[in-house]
Amino acid sequence: MKRYFEHIAPITYRGPDATEPLAFRHYDKDRVVLGKRMEDHLRFAVCYWHTFCWNGLDPFGLGTFQRPWFEGGSPMELAMQKTDAAFDFFSKLGAPYYCFHDRDVAPEGANPRESQDNFRRMVEVLGLQQERTGMKLLWGTANLFSHRRFMSGAATNPDPAIFSLAALQVRDAMNATKELGGENYVLWGGREGYETLLNTDLSREMDQLGRFLTMAVEHKHKIGFKGTILIEPKPREPSKHQYDFDTATVYGFLVRYGLDKEVKVNIEANHATLSGHSFEHEIATAASLGILGSIDMNRGDPQLGWDTDQFPHNVPETALALYHILQAGGLGTGGLNFDAKVRRQSIDAEDLFHGHIGGMDVCAKALLIAEQMIEHGLLKAAVDARYAGWNTPQAKDILAGRVPLDELADAALSRNQDVAPVSGRQEYLENLVNRFCGA
Amino acid sequence: MKRYFEHIAPITYRGPDATEPLAFRHYDKDRVVLGKRMEDHLRFAVCYWHTFCWNGLDPFGLGTFQRPWFEGGSPMELAMQKTDAAFDFFSKLGAPYYCFHDRDVAPEGANPRESQDNFRRMVEVLGLQQERTGMKLLWGTANLFSHRRFMSGAATNPDPAIFSLAALQVRDAMNATKELGGENYVLWGGREGYETLLNTDLSREMDQLGRFLTMAVEHKHKIGFKGTILIEPKPREPSKHQYDFDTATVYGFLVRYGLDKEVKVNIEANHATLSGHSFEHEIATAASLGILGSIDMNRGDPQLGWDTDQFPHNVPETALALYHILQAGGLGTGGLNFDAKVRRQSIDAEDLFHGHIGGMDVCAKALLIAEQMIEHGLLKAAVDARYAGWNTPQAKDILAGRVPLDELADAALSRNQDVAPVSGRQEYLENLVNRFCGA
Amino acid sequence: MKRYFEHIAPITYRGPDATEPLAFRHYDKDRVVLGKRMEDHLRFAVCYWHTFCWNGLDPFGLGTFQRPWFEGGSPMELAMQKTDAAFDFFSKLGAPYYCFHDRDVAPEGANPRESQDNFRRMVEVLGLQQERTGMKLLWGTANLFSHRRFMSGAATNPDPAIFSLAALQVRDAMNATKELGGENYVLWGGREGYETLLNTDLSREMDQLGRFLTMAVEHKHKIGFKGTILIEPKPREPSKHQYDFDTATVYGFLVRYGLDKEVKVNIEANHATLSGHSFEHEIATAASLGILGSIDMNRGDPQLGWDTDQFPHNVPETALALYHILQAGGLGTGGLNFDAKVRRQSIDAEDLFHGHIGGMDVCAKALLIAEQMIEHGLLKAAVDARYAGWNTPQAKDILAGRVPLDELADAALSRNQDVAPVSGRQEYLENLVNRFCGA
Amino acid sequence: MKRYFEHIAPITYRGPDATEPLAFRHYDKDRVVLGKRMEDHLRFAVCYWHTFCWNGLDPFGLGTFQRPWFEGGSPMELAMQKTDAAFDFFSKLGAPYYCFHDRDVAPEGANPRESQDNFRRMVEVLGLQQERTGMKLLWGTANLFSHRRFMSGAATNPDPAIFSLAALQVRDAMNATKELGGENYVLWGGREGYETLLNTDLSREMDQLGRFLTMAVEHKHKIGFKGTILIEPKPREPSKHQYDFDTATVYGFLVRYGLDKEVKVNIEANHATLSGHSFEHEIATAASLGILGSIDMNRGDPQLGWDTDQFPHNVPETALALYHILQAGGLGTGGLNFDAKVRRQSIDAEDLFHGHIGGMDVCAKALLIAEQMIEHGLLKAAVDARYAGWNTPQAKDILAGRVPLDELADAALSRNQDVAPVSGRQEYLENLVNRFCGA
Repeated sequence: MKRYFEHIAPITYRGPDATEPLAFRHYDKDRVVLGKRMEDHLRFAVCYWHTFCWNGLDPFGLGTFQRPWFEGGSPMELAMQKTDAAFDFFSKLGAPYYCFHDRDVAPEGANPRESQDNFRRMVEVLGLQQERTGMKLLWGTANLFSHRRFMSGAATNPDPAIFSLAALQVRDAMNATKELGGENYVLWGGREGYETLLNTDLSREMDQLGRFLTMAVEHKHKIGFKGTILIEPKPREPSKHQYDFDTATVYGFLVRYGLDKEVKVNIEANHATLSGHSFEHEIATAASLGILGSIDMNRGDPQLGWDTDQFPHNVPETALALYHILQAGGLGTGGLNFDAKVRRQSIDAEDLFHGHIGGMDVCAKALLIAEQMIEHGLLKAAVDARYAGWNTPQAKDILAGRVPLDELADAALSRNQDVAPVSGRQEYLENLVNRFCGA
Repeated sequence: MKRYFEHIAPITYRGPDATEPLAFRHYDKDRVVLGKRMEDHLRFAVCYWHTFCWNGLDPFGLGTFQRPWFEGGSPMELAMQKTDAAFDFFSKLGAPYYCFHDRDVAPEGANPRESQDNFRRMVEVLGLQQERTGMKLLWGTANLFSHRRFMSGAATNPDPAIFSLAALQVRDAMNATKELGGENYVLWGGREGYETLLNTDLSREMDQLGRFLTMAVEHKHKIGFKGTILIEPKPREPSKHQYDFDTATVYGFLVRYGLDKEVKVNIEANHATLSGHSFEHEIATAASLGILGSIDMNRGDPQLGWDTDQFPHNVPETALALYHILQAGGLGTGGLNFDAKVRRQSIDAEDLFHGHIGGMDVCAKALLIAEQMIEHGLLKAAVDARYAGWNTPQAKDILAGRVPLDELADAALSRNQDVAPVSGRQEYLENLVNRFCGA
Repeated sequence: MKRYFEHIAPITYRGPDATEPLAFRHYDKDRVVLGKRMEDHLRFAVCYWHTFCWNGLDPFGLGTFQRPWFEGGSPMELAMQKTDAAFDFFSKLGAPYYCFHDRDVAPEGANPRESQDNFRRMVEVLGLQQERTGMKLLWGTANLFSHRRFMSGAATNPDPAIFSLAALQVRDAMNATKELGGENYVLWGGREGYETLLNTDLSREMDQLGRFLTMAVEHKHKIGFKGTILIEPKPREPSKHQYDFDTATVYGFLVRYGLDKEVKVNIEANHATLSGHSFEHEIATAASLGILGSIDMNRGDPQLGWDTDQFPHNVPETALALYHILQAGGLGTGGLNFDAKVRRQSIDAEDLFHGHIGGMDVCAKALLIAEQMIEHGLLKAAVDARYAGWNTPQAKDILAGRVPLDELADAALSRNQDVAPVSGRQEYLENLVNRFCGA
Repeated sequence: MKRYFEHIAPITYRGPDATEPLAFRHYDKDRVVLGKRMEDHLRFAVCYWHTFCWNGLDPFGLGTFQRPWFEGGSPMELAMQKTDAAFDFFSKLGAPYYCFHDRDVAPEGANPRESQDNFRRMVEVLGLQQERTGMKLLWGTANLFSHRRFMSGAATNPDPAIFSLAALQVRDAMNATKELGGENYVLWGGREGYETLLNTDLSREMDQLGRFLTMAVEHKHKIGFKGTILIEPKPREPSKHQYDFDTATVYGFLVRYGLDKEVKVNIEANHATLSGHSFEHEIATAASLGILGSIDMNRGDPQLGWDTDQFPHNVPETALALYHILQAGGLGTGGLNFDAKVRRQSIDAEDLFHGHIGGMDVCAKALLIAEQMIEHGLLKAAVDARYAGWNTPQAKDILAGRVPLDELADAALSRNQDVAPVSGRQEYLENLVNRFCGA
């Protein structure tokens, strides 16, 4: 066991007035919020890829991070080291979950079998590390987008042999997720889309994707995996257009292929805003369609047109997101995975802690605000009152399909009067939100 | 009959080298393209609202157009005058179709009955004008977004009495559309969305919208209207978020409410780009999902974040859009409606002609290019060749669901070899497109 | 004197725990912050146009607001009524300043002289109302964008006769501003730009604009107006491109025409974000270039591509903006003008109060946070420490231009060693900001 | 001399009807256009970085290109091989120029001296290759953004020692550019900006940048380099905000530091659109401000928010860009550098040719269209006619500053009449453009 964060003491809750940077000011995991421990509401996960694999590379620059676990051994030895670094970090931070792609934890081998062997050996190591530390796996997934073989898609690849290699990775990653007690399995289709319609058969590719997802669902049942299968919507990047554009698009896709009862969405804040929606829109939409699964918690930059995967830092915005999650009854098997990375210039080990501590505190404070919103009930009451007119028997008949258009039209005609609109009170409601935010 | 465009001679085809501005250089309506007259491919429609109703007002300025038909009478007299102006224009231009909202052709009255009376009288006038000129109605629709009563939605209004007033308008507008021989009926939900989630019950509003649309579909069948019912997707504007965000979202909505065999989409170029898609993406998606209905032909400005509704002017881009339409087998009862307006500074009557002539010529030239693309077959052949691997019996078995994940994964493992990707040849294909564009 | 807000009691400070909606929870005008009263820091202004003139119209809908002062008299009588409504509102709200365009307060007449007469009479009325209530004028301006004559620009119009009519309005509006004790004079060029380069001579138009602004500056000195002349940058809307795109562009323009010591910028939050910058970027840039003048306080919607002019509601974001303003030494003659409007669905008189109260409270709370940031000094200290290397004599020599490139290059070569970068600590600093925000 | 493109014959002009993909259909280098050979107008350059160095890596995936010159030797041997590949490609293609960064052609060494040695040796090799092939250098530049030492900027780095290392690279790259007969020297500041204002001193960094640029200009004169120094504006990416945001911003910066007569801009199409401008806007603005230098010819994707650096393919858009360049009198020492890369899925050597051939043909065809626009003169005449009112002596007096505001205002008042606006004829002009485009 190598220790990479020995100079960092375990992060503990010190209360809102604490001034030391390496402490929680709001995340008090055992505090009971709406009848449940904070930890059980938030179900934080740390992601393997950004935190332990990324070296700071961007499209215009080489790596900036010189992590000690990046050097000093064969690929498999480095993979071992990385688990030490990761579980050391997890233990210090105190988040209960983590998430990984197959290729984050085990190096690609010279051929499929070697890749599988590498992965299996590392899954064993992860199991031991979990046992040792008590960490749990929120979800696992397969990386079907980094290797050049997937440049034109995995499930949507023009070559069925590449589809098959993708199937191999998903099978193995789902099996491993089950083995490690993972609570969900995620599919993100960064290359399941197109660069140009000129070389793309859209219909065929969507059918391929539907088939692939169906096979994954069938496999889940075959092996008795009890977790939730999640699709992660993203509109574009790396592909010009991705088939899982946003929650509403994924819903239509699931229904088309008969999977809407089997698969939910993993919503990422930054993906939401890239698709032209607010984060809470995507949450509310998924809740409304019955497919809210889990959250990739991060933020984008409102001036940038790409996925910046920054840690959340705006409490009022996060509070509204959590308010919608709480109203939807929470995330079930899902959680809040920090699919977030420290900036490329944040090159110190401490920066990894600052990022996660800040993110956890923002969510914790936001949860306390959302609790207030729900307990006071003023926001919900305002919405309910607005639609109260739909509670009459006549109005219910309309919604129930018992009134044909002609009848409704004639009734309006015979009343022969206009109807005055009622204020939407947006500013009042925004002020109310700020009151709960302490602002 | 007042004549408003007496100084303009009927617009005729003069060939590609013509230099007079008020003539077609490419739109030769009887020219046969892929076995059909150009006119029957393009099915151009002129819209009533932008061309005869809009006065040049924008959010920062008052009207700039001083149309002679805007003044000199009571609202109903002005409505009569406007039909003269419109049908005079139509006849000069030579587009075979037009489109309207109920409130474009008849003024809102002091109460619902008066509004209905006004509309009925004007529908009669339109019928006479159609008879006189041979013009046809591509589609009718009801304006459920301009009046203050609809500020919080029509079908999605918190007040069922406003839902009922909307039902009255849709009933009457659909009946009128049938009466006038309209080939489609359109619904655009500019206010069917929200400004803030704080005062919105998303689930309830979507159910209201689903019910409303179902009632419209049932009414269609009741009255024996043979046209197609169309939804026009738009992501936002005027609302912050609109439920009919894009084609994929509309598809999911239709399936959810059991309407995917009953309703198609009317795709607008500018709405497509506002939703983060290319125009041809929306066309190809609708075709793939079996809901391609009609087109609102225009363009946006790539630097502007709102609906500019400009006339199309880029031939290569339009050619690709038409190529996708032709590949999908054409538009059926749909057509190309110019939901386009001359710029606010284009204040002369001639400018209305320049806008439409330019738009028609761009589409005609684009159609000729798309014809070349199809006849040469090189683009399609390249796509087919790319996916050829999926034509083997083994690959077909996969897509048909006859191969479980485990079996496919094990087969890949036992082959135990990587698969080399193949060039997507995007630049080659783009050059090929330019070759067909004469560029 | 008509009273329009009799049912509303004057808005007073009730402390952070107050729950009544029509009260301030943070804006305690006499509270001393960094040695100055809150009121004197924030210098709030209410704008005439959105609050008293706008009727709720948007590009897809007619007015929704039925203000009692909109009806019941001739245009001049309505203008009088409007002053009653406005000053009644001002007095109830307790903001010390207001702002107006000439056409907000007085109707356009049938010809220039009548327009001037109308305006002069209304300026007299405004003077009396100011005297009666103690309200002050933050700035005046001329509306050079609403009337159709300005459709192709005012100063940049192709017709010098329109340039002259614009000059008349600016002369009269600046004179009136002086007469009413206005502390600044603003120019916003919504039509000073272009729709298409095809009909535009960019060089000529910029020269026209430079000349126009110079004439305004010369007139200011001639009449002894002591206020600041301000340009309000905006990238686009209504024009496709506006010459005053952003602060950096305005700076280049001012220098080009020799006006950088005479004119400053009035930065609007929503214009900043439309131009691809953050609000605080525009503030920091203006401060750095020595042209920070005043603020139009509002916010846009991150998903919308147009100017939504909403009231600010995000405290952490506003706190950073105020922190930059305080660091720049404050706004001098400028202030925080709410160029903000209640939503079109917020149709009640109370909504006008909710909007302004919310906005004032957000700024007040943000000011208290910014005070903490400055008093603790940690943010500034972190920045200073980062650049400490530039304080050596050798480094100062470089900046002072005493070291030629060759010498510096050779010195680096002779040291012959790489230099390790230092963490930018972004996450640490973001967490620090949240600490000051109480989050 | 290794040959990497032996299977490709030299690309030659075959005329518009040619169907072979590896031929020019429009680029006929000796054809005389407006009195000058096509080659001398267009001055095409191939860039070293995208074409010979990039391996297809993107933020979500590893390299996809397996170029033969990527393997089989030490870093310096590979650099040698790369010159063979590059000059073989250049010779086959027939573009007269190329461009490079120091680190494209020579590997970074273990320390500054080794880096310098590597670069010097490679510059010698480039000189020999130029001699052998007749290729010329359009511009050279230094890569000050890829290495981790520059993560927080080069000229704007908080550490003066990194500023010095940047100075060393610029000095050496400018000397090399002179030695190789380069006609321009470019600076692009991808890291000269910030990620967060929280750790940034904007004023100080701009002063550093001003100083650095001044030193470069002084060095140019010292060594007698006759080429033009160019700044390449880009709004963001990799940095969140870059100081050289767009042409207008760069102009203000140059004036501030007294460099507006010394430095021009190198405008990239994709950077233009990322900054919220059209490509031709940036060209027209630079021409108007007297700082139009050179062009990085490419295009972005209108749906993507990052720099895609695709080859131009839209002829009408490119024609308008060239029309503005021709109207400005051409590019002087500048040229059209293809800062463009084939897509990551275009993995074959042929794809490099398709990209460049397509780009050159698009520009050639666009040049022929621009020639028509200029020879017919209709576009220019329309603009001139629009501003004709400014040619009267009275109007010229206004622009010359001989009429004070009061006088102009009083004259308008005494005329006492409104002025009717004139149609901007945008649709007519757009149709005219399409006529010249053959559409």
